[in-house]
Amino acid sequence: MSLIVQKYGGSSVADAEGLKRVAKRIVETRKAGHEVVVVVSAMGDTTDELLDLAEKVVPVPGGRELDMLLSAGERISMALLAMAIKGLGVEARSYTGSQAGMITDAQHGSARIVDVTPKRVREALDQGAVAIVAGFQGFNRGTGDITTLGRGGSDTTAVALAAALGAEVCEIYTDVDGVFTADPRVVPSARKIDRITSEEMLELAAGGAKVLYIRAVEYARRHGVTLHVRSSFNNNEGTLVVASIEGENVEEPIITGVAADLSEAKITVVGVPDIPGKAAQIFTIVAKTNANIDMVVQNVSTASTGRTDISFTLPKSDAQAALTALTAEQAEVGFDSLQHDDQIGKLAVVGAGMRSSAGVTAQLFTALFEAGINIEMISTSEIRISVVTRADTVNEAVRVVHKAFGLDADTEAVVHGGTGR
Amino acid sequence: MSLIVQKYGGSSVADAEGLKRVAKRIVETRKAGHEVVVVVSAMGDTTDELLDLAEKVVPVPGGRELDMLLSAGERISMALLAMAIKGLGVEARSYTGSQAGMITDAQHGSARIVDVTPKRVREALDQGAVAIVAGFQGFNRGTGDITTLGRGGSDTTAVALAAALGAEVCEIYTDVDGVFTADPRVVPSARKIDRITSEEMLELAAGGAKVLYIRAVEYARRHGVTLHVRSSFNNNEGTLVVASIEGENVEEPIITGVAADLSEAKITVVGVPDIPGKAAQIFTIVAKTNANIDMVVQNVSTASTGRTDISFTLPKSDAQAALTALTAEQAEVGFDSLQHDDQIGKLAVVGAGMRSSAGVTAQLFTALFEAGINIEMISTSEIRISVVTRADTVNEAVRVVHKAFGLDADTEAVVHGGTGR
Repeated sequence: MSLIVQKYGGSSVADAEGLKRVAKRIVETRKAGHEVVVVVSAMGDTTDELLDLAEKVVPVPGGRELDMLLSAGERISMALLAMAIKGLGVEARSYTGSQAGMITDAQHGSARIVDVTPKRVREALDQGAVAIVAGFQGFNRGTGDITTLGRGGSDTTAVALAAALGAEVCEIYTDVDGVFTADPRVVPSARKIDRITSEEMLELAAGGAKVLYIRAVEYARRHGVTLHVRSSFNNNEGTLVVASIEGENVEEPIITGVAADLSEAKITVVGVPDIPGKAAQIFTIVAKTNANIDMVVQNVSTASTGRTDISFTLPKSDAQAALTALTAEQAEVGFDSLQHDDQIGKLAVVGAGMRSSAGVTAQLFTALFEAGINIEMISTSEIRISVVTRADTVNEAVRVVHKAFGLDADTEAVVHGGTGR
Repeated sequence: MSLIVQKYGGSSVADAEGLKRVAKRIVETRKAGHEVVVVVSAMGDTTDELLDLAEKVVPVPGGRELDMLLSAGERISMALLAMAIKGLGVEARSYTGSQAGMITDAQHGSARIVDVTPKRVREALDQGAVAIVAGFQGFNRGTGDITTLGRGGSDTTAVALAAALGAEVCEIYTDVDGVFTADPRVVPSARKIDRITSEEMLELAAGGAKVLYIRAVEYARRHGVTLHVRSSFNNNEGTLVVASIEGENVEEPIITGVAADLSEAKITVVGVPDIPGKAAQIFTIVAKTNANIDMVVQNVSTASTGRTDISFTLPKSDAQAALTALTAEQAEVGFDSLQHDDQIGKLAVVGAGMRSSAGVTAQLFTALFEAGINIEMISTSEIRISVVTRADTVNEAVRVVHKAFGLDADTEAVVHGGTGR
């Protein structure tokens, strides 16, 4: 008997019908002889609705009380799901993050898991019951308070439980069939990826792919948890996220997928004195605002002025605080001015095959050039190349690059392509 | 510095505006120098909405999972209320039933409080914070599970906390000005009662007055907690529910108030053998269905047949189960038939003054007779007389009796009458 952790997102349990559909699937898995632990998110838009309500009460809700509020969402979905499963004749018990032993630090709104002690979950399984666990929430031992893990925290809950319980697989159910070579809404010819390494998945998630959260993929990678991203609306095989893909080197594609991200803004610090320590000074100031800096580019110094420009991207929501902090320190740092651009788009091409393939960067730039798309920033890692373009050209850039690297479903170059299962 | 427990029902916190209004009142109480513990119900119709959702998932939701589901309602209201209070510059912290030490037995849906250990509430008060506690919910130590106290449980939570913390007063906020001599929607001339004994309040609540739940009044009586029932929409003094009313004997009214109840049905067991033990047998059968039997009347035996009829009232929702159970045992008990009547109304007149006043029953029956209202059942206690009439005559009966006992606001006989505060 193997143990399977299944995670269902809000769109899979948006209403009573969805809950019953998901319950049926869980019961089928249980009856197939598996032990089943289910992690569930709040129903549909519940979390956003609770946030809206909080914003009607106070301008900037947060901290302990916001976590207490938001944790009600999973409590509703998990209790209903347990009822639905029991209604199908299979014993089920729901557990809050606290009851399931999701121990976190005290950082409300973005708590980190420090320990997982799923004693009650294990007991429920030993008694033949399905255990339903609230995603997204935990408990701090020091304060005795409820915490939440931040957006996408339910994926992390599922992976952490899978690791702690030694699950065979952690199935992440969503409303799409798996991880695609690009967003199918942007690239209709995008193909579902059958298998992807966690390293590549991390880069795709960092590049803007929404299907999995970086944090959950990273947790899975570190703890050797196999993820299976699949649809809760059909029985198709989805995408397996694995540590490494053996025996496929011959056919290994250069590029696994293309991701895009429209949620970032660019800040340029203009006229920074080109002396050692200035970049460190700037990023220390920004770091104090808790801004999540993504790409950084420093232009070469203009010899005549001894000054340079430093550009970086960060979430749009973090930009204002960063600008304010930098302005306050302008005299200290000695830069000339700040530029703020929130009309950028980021494109990332990801593939483990890049490591052994020369010319990927050239091929990428050529494709974009031929399509008349201007590149504003470039950043590369071992298996990823990210470029910043105008926001309104990024979708076209994704299509062009997807085609150029032979990922389109109608070309022969597809290697990770699905078999239509 | 005195400690005040305030309980706000769902109608007082139905939306963001209501929450802010209540927060303002709490902050005023705190700033007046009191320690404040707030017990809050779920917002508006949340509990009913959650129940509806559960019924869409399974035909008869119940047990552990229903309690888990319903407890989400208070979690939402209490977190929002804490935020609203903090937004006004006063520290506030919300606590679930479990965190506030509301220890109950394991009877899901109607748990009884077995211990109250409000350690964290006391700590919050010691640190100058307002403590917000979820009404209606508790925690069973043996199972580690969340429980709920049943409808009206928030009143009980408030009284239990007031008792455990030694509060000066437990204020029950509602959408009316206090306890009235009769339902003002039925009797426009009804008067607010300034002070009432807990004994009388118990009888009024048992008679159908909705403003307080029997269980909370009983808990308050046993633990010597003073209740103050008042409106959250104005600053008027409400009704004080006290152990006894001293020094007003001279003016003590015979009747304090009149209550009506349309939620009961009547079952008559026809042709019961008039031999010892038959009544006990019948009520044992009914008790096994957990029906809440209220009034019981046994007619005198018809000498010629040696048989008698036994009638009793019970909540309409309990009637079907009782009928089924009795039918199953008909041969065993030996009765002839069952009659079921769900078109009854119950009227109760309550007053401590009855003890020392002869003729109250006669006065009541005369008033009803003169109004042409037929009495079907009668039951009396030391300070209450209840009668059953046709459902469609009960409101008229309340008006007639209210007037007959001099409770109408425009008569001179009002004794407990308010001063317009």
